[in-house]
Amino acid sequence: MKLKTIEWGEGRIKLVDQTKLPQSLEYIYIKNIKDLYSAIQKLQVRGAPALGAAGALGVYLGIRDFKGKSFSGFRKKLNSVAAYLAASRPTARNLFWGIERVCKVTLKSKVISIEQIKRLILKEALDIISEDRESCRKIGEYGAGLIKNGDRILTICNAGILATIDYGTALGVIYRAQEKGKKFKVYACETRPLLQGSRLTAWELKKKGVDVTIICDNMAAALMKDKKIDRVITGADRIALNGDSANKIGTYNLAVLSKYHRIPFYIAAPASTFDLSLQQGSGIIIEERDSEEVTSLLSERAIAPFGAKVFNPAFDVTENSLITAIITDLGVIKPPYLKNIRKLLC
Amino acid sequence: MKLKTIEWGEGRIKLVDQTKLPQSLEYIYIKNIKDLYSAIQKLQVRGAPALGAAGALGVYLGIRDFKGKSFSGFRKKLNSVAAYLAASRPTARNLFWGIERVCKVTLKSKVISIEQIKRLILKEALDIISEDRESCRKIGEYGAGLIKNGDRILTICNAGILATIDYGTALGVIYRAQEKGKKFKVYACETRPLLQGSRLTAWELKKKGVDVTIICDNMAAALMKDKKIDRVITGADRIALNGDSANKIGTYNLAVLSKYHRIPFYIAAPASTFDLSLQQGSGIIIEERDSEEVTSLLSERAIAPFGAKVFNPAFDVTENSLITAIITDLGVIKPPYLKNIRKLLC
Repeated sequence: MKLKTIEWGEGRIKLVDQTKLPQSLEYIYIKNIKDLYSAIQKLQVRGAPALGAAGALGVYLGIRDFKGKSFSGFRKKLNSVAAYLAASRPTARNLFWGIERVCKVTLKSKVISIEQIKRLILKEALDIISEDRESCRKIGEYGAGLIKNGDRILTICNAGILATIDYGTALGVIYRAQEKGKKFKVYACETRPLLQGSRLTAWELKKKGVDVTIICDNMAAALMKDKKIDRVITGADRIALNGDSANKIGTYNLAVLSKYHRIPFYIAAPASTFDLSLQQGSGIIIEERDSEEVTSLLSERAIAPFGAKVFNPAFDVTENSLITAIITDLGVIKPPYLKNIRKLLC
Repeated sequence: MKLKTIEWGEGRIKLVDQTKLPQSLEYIYIKNIKDLYSAIQKLQVRGAPALGAAGALGVYLGIRDFKGKSFSGFRKKLNSVAAYLAASRPTARNLFWGIERVCKVTLKSKVISIEQIKRLILKEALDIISEDRESCRKIGEYGAGLIKNGDRILTICNAGILATIDYGTALGVIYRAQEKGKKFKVYACETRPLLQGSRLTAWELKKKGVDVTIICDNMAAALMKDKKIDRVITGADRIALNGDSANKIGTYNLAVLSKYHRIPFYIAAPASTFDLSLQQGSGIIIEERDSEEVTSLLSERAIAPFGAKVFNPAFDVTENSLITAIITDLGVIKPPYLKNIRKLLC
């Protein structure tokens, strides 16, 4: 299977529509930032690294038709496009990172024409895509060393091909271990409310021939108690300077359970996920999403009384003391995190 | 709302069809054991105490048309009815208890006619119903003393009116606290895969005017971390002599999280839930249910790839060391459990 989650071509972004999986593999084609904003918000595209690439390409879509001649007018347009796209998902560090990175092109390019700047922005976005492919493979390589033959690995949400360009972070570790001929078994938490685990992770692992078993999120503890899990690997959406990591809601739950059952708990994420301006995880703003995600099954059937109150945070924060190691594209970071993150990334 | 989950009348069992909630309140009428077996297996009736009453009435349905004259023939019929009904849910201690209890009537009744025994079996089943109503109110009374004004209480699955005759065990505690004028807030874990929390618990608490908020099971840890939960109360399906408690899958998860966050964790269950022949929880056989419960949303829409492997245990076991107290109809039991359970129940 040669699956690409995001591609650029013919002046548009081609995206796998992740809300249609696992029933059907369908693509959507995005030509303007309004459609991209909506695709990000509806989670047709999701996953930290994929959002970085989408955001960067989105900036290009937003400014390519700018007709003015003044550099300051262009700057203003660029800033409004960036702010608009960044508002689509408040917790997605990589989305902001992708947007900021292409915007920075203008800083070093004051002497050239606006048309040249537009081309540089597109080039920078395409660089993000090729770097992500490279970076996932490095995470996979570093992480595969931690996987042992016979391992039973638990993961949550989707940190795979469908969260990146074409390889994955947490699942990149699994794909690389598979390429190296290791034998193991994966348990995928279904990941309520939007079921990225059962819909996306189980789908791509099965396509790749990995032995995968779906569980409901509330079954992980029982599996660990029965000594059926050897390690946990998840992705991350934002990592603070001290290693505290925000990821899909339920990740912190798994981290606490891992601690209690003495199971290694790993985060796998590219260096771009680190927000070095953030001292610790408590500073991370958690996106609260629509209650309807919880009260109706994929918007189809009511499963809660009409008007029921819901608390629906999209992410949680796992404190560094619960994390065994953070697998990045620059190497594996172990505690003490503050010191070792600074050493590797600053 | 005067809701009765189970009633006997006109020669049939009247049951709230719990698979239809929260969309509509519908009843089913059961006249034979085949239909009852199917209703139990499909979870149209569920909840430990309700199953005890249903099982007991079921025994009567199974033997009432027995035409033979020999006591040994009647005994044989009774045993086969009991074995048939007991096989409908393998973890439900109260189901076995209800069935066994009405069967024991025959032991003391060898001198009377078979028709009289039949009437005694029905009377015993109806006694179970009235005792359950009484017992839930006692659990409520004992448990309400543990609830403080301003509490934020977390529960899982449904241990309420819909799990008993008309009051509840864990939710009985909440109803009694409400009657006493205490102010509090309840969080209901939705309880995958069959969503008894969002479909049933949120529905009945809302009907009763209790402030209830639904969360996905994987959000409990984040709530506890944010110091938004003051105590956890759940029901139980089977409790061993040492206090180890089997309950809906996800309960053990909450118990581990409670320990980590230093939050009191209570089990509420009638004395009939204790299986004093069981030394500890590791002896409890856990029912594994159909994978389809996980892979399709209430049997309607596929949410996992076709043929995906699933692990779907219905229950888990929480070791006594994680339980702050067990609230029963005979009083509140605190550690050391082995000693105190023996003292109260043996």
